[in-house]
Amino acid sequence: MNDETLTRANPDVLHGFCARAFQAVGVPAADAALTADVILAASLRGVDSHGIIWLPRYIERIQWGMIRPDAHTRLVHESPTTALMDAGGGLGQPAGYRAMQEAIRKARQYGTGWVTVRNSNHYGIAGYYAMLALKHDMIGLSMTNADPSVLPTFGLARMLGTNPIAVAAPAGRERPFVLDMATSVVAVGKINLARRAGRPIPSGWATDESGAPSTDPDQVMEGRTQKRPGGVLPLGGIGEQLGGHKGYGLGLLVEILTGILSGSATADQTYPTRPDGTPLPADLGHFFGAIRLDGFGPVQDFKAAMDDLIGRLRNTPRIAGAERIYIAGEKEFEETERRATAGIPLSGALASELRALAEELGVTVDL
Amino acid sequence: MNDETLTRANPDVLHGFCARAFQAVGVPAADAALTADVILAASLRGVDSHGIIWLPRYIERIQWGMIRPDAHTRLVHESPTTALMDAGGGLGQPAGYRAMQEAIRKARQYGTGWVTVRNSNHYGIAGYYAMLALKHDMIGLSMTNADPSVLPTFGLARMLGTNPIAVAAPAGRERPFVLDMATSVVAVGKINLARRAGRPIPSGWATDESGAPSTDPDQVMEGRTQKRPGGVLPLGGIGEQLGGHKGYGLGLLVEILTGILSGSATADQTYPTRPDGTPLPADLGHFFGAIRLDGFGPVQDFKAAMDDLIGRLRNTPRIAGAERIYIAGEKEFEETERRATAGIPLSGALASELRALAEELGVTVDL
Repeated sequence: MNDETLTRANPDVLHGFCARAFQAVGVPAADAALTADVILAASLRGVDSHGIIWLPRYIERIQWGMIRPDAHTRLVHESPTTALMDAGGGLGQPAGYRAMQEAIRKARQYGTGWVTVRNSNHYGIAGYYAMLALKHDMIGLSMTNADPSVLPTFGLARMLGTNPIAVAAPAGRERPFVLDMATSVVAVGKINLARRAGRPIPSGWATDESGAPSTDPDQVMEGRTQKRPGGVLPLGGIGEQLGGHKGYGLGLLVEILTGILSGSATADQTYPTRPDGTPLPADLGHFFGAIRLDGFGPVQDFKAAMDDLIGRLRNTPRIAGAERIYIAGEKEFEETERRATAGIPLSGALASELRALAEELGVTVDL
Repeated sequence: MNDETLTRANPDVLHGFCARAFQAVGVPAADAALTADVILAASLRGVDSHGIIWLPRYIERIQWGMIRPDAHTRLVHESPTTALMDAGGGLGQPAGYRAMQEAIRKARQYGTGWVTVRNSNHYGIAGYYAMLALKHDMIGLSMTNADPSVLPTFGLARMLGTNPIAVAAPAGRERPFVLDMATSVVAVGKINLARRAGRPIPSGWATDESGAPSTDPDQVMEGRTQKRPGGVLPLGGIGEQLGGHKGYGLGLLVEILTGILSGSATADQTYPTRPDGTPLPADLGHFFGAIRLDGFGPVQDFKAAMDDLIGRLRNTPRIAGAERIYIAGEKEFEETERRATAGIPLSGALASELRALAEELGVTVDL
């Protein structure tokens, strides 16, 4: 984003706007508030690719009939520590929240809880759900599949989603460990950001139609829209030499735990349309887990050992020019603190889009 | 390995030899057989870095008093679906086997089971334990930490192990999905193989003392022995541009679930020695999981969907020159079939070392 055109929006103002916008298109108040929570968590954490920028898209998808605003998430099948839930083609966020709460409930009773969700839509940042476990002194886990963007090793067709894995683990006086990573080299949103900024992308993020590295974000994003060969690379990059088969394996693992275990689509069959081209619910799958720390030993011992390891990592020698050794999630916690007071940066174009959306829906927003 | 100097050894012969060798240094028969199973599984699957090459090292460590041959794995703490076990400084393989069986037992009763192990030693290939779940129609998971080899992003000190993650998931008519991957770009064993072959390593596997890429396997392995700065890179490589922070995050996740959750050491504090330099047990930690497929829905639906996805991946368009799209574990299953009949290749040096070991221990081996 260009600082000259930035608006800084108050997070509470944006939260209220999101909630009212969802209610205006038929989402019940509780679900609207939950969805606003997840969107604002992304915007506060600096994950702008999953933040307020998505509001117009979600609203549009509800208006198209692709996301059902009044869907109920229901329990389909369960064992003491496992469950399958059906999101009913509704918003992924309330479905994800309820599934994670169910995992936490089971963990409270039996030590761990594991819940898959089928028939869902885009659920925002994976890390939000994993972090819900933290205050219960549990490790939280969240995964989702997504639209097909990523190539299998040696392949030319986008068969996998960027398929994030998020795991949150408590610490004591230190901040929690929060890993929230696409299993691709990079999230699609970062390629989009480069495209909008007119910058080339680094070699190793994506390929052209022949499978050779591409540094042209236009080519990559247009190829995706036009369903041409090529796409985003799995973590580890092209081929096997630098471990691309590992990123591909991790991406496929996420498809198995989200799409297959839940009975949803896998990435290559998500986002179906009717014969006339009208979009149907995306049929995404999610996977959530909660693990009680005291199922293995004293909670305080775990937290003290986390603090110790984080301290040792932070004080480890660095390469020349590097200011810090980071722990997963640390940058996002610091950004959350900054944005909570300074506000959430919106480009001029996004601020205009949000004002237009407010007007269209007949709700207020003060940007 | 150089084909001209290869011996091909019968897997059963090697298995019997391993079991007798362990018994000769005081390992009870059942534990000796289990450890032989894990070693031979690696050798059959083509993972030579974790196979029979380790037998002399394990024996030596037992002789040093670093691995306790007659240790008992005991249950320390549990909830319905979780447990902490203590390996008593014994071989990692029988500890890992018993912990995975405990996870499976808990999963049978409650849907899932999760077991950490503390105070353990090197346990061989992670995938062996994950695959034990397959015949129960469960997804299996196994992780371990290891001696410090891997750099955190921007760091110069080896703070993490290569920290493998293994997950096995059943299919129907297709072979199971078996992901078994170091969270580093490459396993240390591959750098050792290049060193022995006198070949440079690819840029992006490891760094020199300044943190710059090194292609010299001697430099990397000697730096490791001499505890100089630099080391193996996390999956995703140097810095953050190609996702090195993701590999670092995954490696740290494994430390948390193995070293910290179990109350063992983390990589940087494993392999302690007495003040006089005598080695103590490595104090490694492991983590195991088992997930009943029918905790989420019909087993047959899961397997049919696995078969369908594997089929679609296999038939996906490929880059020029690529013969196949692989599924995680497929190469290893094929290698197992080949080696089960053709035998396990041993270099002349390794065959001699094994014959000398047999003589030293007074056991027979027919190589």
